[in-house]
Amino acid sequence: MHKFLRIAFLLYFTTHIPITLCIDLQALLGHLYPAILRSLYDWYVDTFNDWLFARPPYWYNSFIISELCLQLPFFFFACYGLYYKKNWLRIPSIVYGSHVATTVWAIGAEILCSDVNTVNEKLWLTLFYTPYFACPLMLTLYMSVNEIPFGLESIENKNSKSN
Amino acid sequence: MHKFLRIAFLLYFTTHIPITLCIDLQALLGHLYPAILRSLYDWYVDTFNDWLFARPPYWYNSFIISELCLQLPFFFFACYGLYYKKNWLRIPSIVYGSHVATTVWAIGAEILCSDVNTVNEKLWLTLFYTPYFACPLMLTLYMSVNEIPFGLESIENKNSKSN
Repeated sequence: MHKFLRIAFLLYFTTHIPITLCIDLQALLGHLYPAILRSLYDWYVDTFNDWLFARPPYWYNSFIISELCLQLPFFFFACYGLYYKKNWLRIPSIVYGSHVATTVWAIGAEILCSDVNTVNEKLWLTLFYTPYFACPLMLTLYMSVNEIPFGLESIENKNSKSN
Repeated sequence: MHKFLRIAFLLYFTTHIPITLCIDLQALLGHLYPAILRSLYDWYVDTFNDWLFARPPYWYNSFIISELCLQLPFFFFACYGLYYKKNWLRIPSIVYGSHVATTVWAIGAEILCSDVNTVNEKLWLTLFYTPYFACPLMLTLYMSVNEIPFGLESIENKNSKSN
């Protein structure tokens, strides 16, 4: 994997951890959060009118549950695997990428097609959500076509250490 | 892959093709269908009160679009790959399975948690949707843990034919 791409994915996952913990989970567990984080959530929701996030329907909540139970633990594995160039990251990345791209595909359809938001709000929301569609999709595509994503070098390093 | 499992997946994909073409796509393109197929769709929707299917919201429609554009072509590849034991089916199956399990996860949450359906209707709808969650999930899990899903035999057969 090219250094630039690896850093991009690392940035994506490392920034996703605090965003999930501090913001995203408030859609489900907002009442448990301190006032300062509630204010940040309220500011985002009010400013950009992210109504799905403010009043999440059940289908949207099902994605937040998956973010808490499946994605959040994976973020740590992904950071470790990307940092240390672990080829075992390939299959979990494909599963993660397909899953998350699907969730953002549905959220995007709802935001773009419904008449709740103004054009300006739709543009901002698209801007916010796009990385969470593009990165998982790119990760899935990259890992799908590269059987040994970090090259044989990482396997050889492992073998030479064990000898 | 065990013979029984391969037949189960083959059944799943072969039956999915007519279901997608004759029923599922009516949620999006119902006006283009002949009266007899419309009646079948109306009977299902009325009998089991599948309101998401009858009046699909945008997020649900985004899944129907994916069923038409991504899943339907894949069904043919999957039938071919399962029948002829092609190991290249592994990665596309993982992508397909993660994607579809995610869509049915969201649909299930909406049906089970909303108060539109009676308990009896929820049970029937769960019964209908469960195979479309369980099979993709099983396929993803199986293909994730089996690097050569149809064994080396299928590779050797290929090599001996090319020699």
